[in-house]
Amino acid sequence: MTGAGGFVGRNTLGPLRARGFEVHGTMPASEALDSLDVLVHRADLLDPDQVRCLVRDVAPSHLLHLAWFTEHGKYWEALENLDWVAASLTLARAFYEHGGRRLVMAGSCAEYDWAPPGRREGETGRATLKCNEWLTPCNPSTLYGLSKHVLHLLMSEFNARTGTSGAWARIFFLYGPGEDPRRLVASVIRSLLFGEPAECTLGEQTRDFLHVADAGAALAALIDSDVEGPVNVASGKAVPLKEILHLLGERLGRGDLIRFGARPTPRNEPTVLVADTRRLKDEVGWEPAIDLEKGLEATVDWWRNRFESGVS
Amino acid sequence: MTGAGGFVGRNTLGPLRARGFEVHGTMPASEALDSLDVLVHRADLLDPDQVRCLVRDVAPSHLLHLAWFTEHGKYWEALENLDWVAASLTLARAFYEHGGRRLVMAGSCAEYDWAPPGRREGETGRATLKCNEWLTPCNPSTLYGLSKHVLHLLMSEFNARTGTSGAWARIFFLYGPGEDPRRLVASVIRSLLFGEPAECTLGEQTRDFLHVADAGAALAALIDSDVEGPVNVASGKAVPLKEILHLLGERLGRGDLIRFGARPTPRNEPTVLVADTRRLKDEVGWEPAIDLEKGLEATVDWWRNRFESGVS
Repeated sequence: MTGAGGFVGRNTLGPLRARGFEVHGTMPASEALDSLDVLVHRADLLDPDQVRCLVRDVAPSHLLHLAWFTEHGKYWEALENLDWVAASLTLARAFYEHGGRRLVMAGSCAEYDWAPPGRREGETGRATLKCNEWLTPCNPSTLYGLSKHVLHLLMSEFNARTGTSGAWARIFFLYGPGEDPRRLVASVIRSLLFGEPAECTLGEQTRDFLHVADAGAALAALIDSDVEGPVNVASGKAVPLKEILHLLGERLGRGDLIRFGARPTPRNEPTVLVADTRRLKDEVGWEPAIDLEKGLEATVDWWRNRFESGVS
Repeated sequence: MTGAGGFVGRNTLGPLRARGFEVHGTMPASEALDSLDVLVHRADLLDPDQVRCLVRDVAPSHLLHLAWFTEHGKYWEALENLDWVAASLTLARAFYEHGGRRLVMAGSCAEYDWAPPGRREGETGRATLKCNEWLTPCNPSTLYGLSKHVLHLLMSEFNARTGTSGAWARIFFLYGPGEDPRRLVASVIRSLLFGEPAECTLGEQTRDFLHVADAGAALAALIDSDVEGPVNVASGKAVPLKEILHLLGERLGRGDLIRFGARPTPRNEPTVLVADTRRLKDEVGWEPAIDLEKGLEATVDWWRNRFESGVS
């Protein structure tokens, strides 16, 4: 697994071990990870020599490629996305050369066309976008989405030509303990813990949120299956952001600090964005275990524990 | 320029020098080139370290990226196409970091959709495909075409985000002295020179052929312009293959050796495939100088000279 120390990676190690995998994980030298579920390999995946040496030494049968440039606020348009396309191609080639058989890479709901043609200038995208892996067109509006999508196109052909088995995990919106503190759920929880106002939109956008522990379990199930092609990794349930915000406010007893409407609602995004999760459910045979209310409560508690033990 | 020793590259050096460029060309260690028009740099472009060192040392203002995996008969579906996507991304990033301003890369007519949906199974593609850079959909059917096309998509975004100027040269069918002896025009000439039969299709496919010296001149004009986006590099004239074959037979006095219909006509290809060359003509301000009959005669003479001087 690449990106073993990341938000998703850390949550995938346990489920992989539980399925009997011997897990080798790559991490940059800068990251820390305390886990008995993984044999850690320090590597800079942007260095092809390191990639080739590592793959040769480990000779993995399966590859779950999660590593990418993910710096909050920057990753959508950063040129580093191009480096990760290149690195991912090098990795796939090395994996195949050293006997690799099954390959799952992390894609994104940002590959789908969020604002189809026909929409009038300045108008919000179509009211409801239910993303189906085969039927919904892809037309990413960000460099991140485009980079993931072209990699998917190349990987499909790579799988077909090498006879390797491959799936492409289109991951939707995630939350959970250990999230980047600048992302929605984490930042609102932290504001409320600090007694500071949380400036939000009206929260009418309805999104598909999955607990990161469920995302890890889904990815482990996916790589352990023989399902091929794009597979949405999501809950399949659309929840208005304001419902999430209300739940957080309630759990922390500081709903008064949430400033609904202080930020504009993003334009050019669908009002409802939700995954069709039939492939994940029917073909992979996996369903989420953590309901949103319990998942948010656990996330609040995790941040509160950190806060109360003096870690900010 | 990358690929300075290749079929197109060799023919671009003179035109670039004539426009006042100081030309630095990369070539693999295995290639030979006898030219006063270029400062040769031996480099393996698949090695990112070599790419970065070379770009840092030369610090080019302009980059014409022609190098790719082009082994005849193999390049359409070879996994090496993925290596060249990765290498091209690394090259573009290094070019920008070291102050590069204008970037032209070689694309291909194989990016266009040769067989659009709606076509019945086994039926030949649409009778006439006139490829326009903005209007004709891209939907490559080969890994080569797909690799070039996704690189184009990424490079467009790269140009937009870095403020560099970029064009994408969609090169059509070429012929001329020095061509790979296994390609159509060269192989027929050689068969006829050797007095051997040349097995051909009926030659009813109509294609857009450009002399490689014209292709070199067009690329030099393109990089010396400020035209951006995809630009077809082609003659704009559709010629039936059988007309080319007849001209070769006539020039060599061995038309009797051409076996029309000995090979099947490729299915799933349009009968007529021709470039719309208005961008090249009107925006770049360039038109072909070598007409097909004269170009083929010169090519025959070049092979005959080699043959008569004992080089096969």
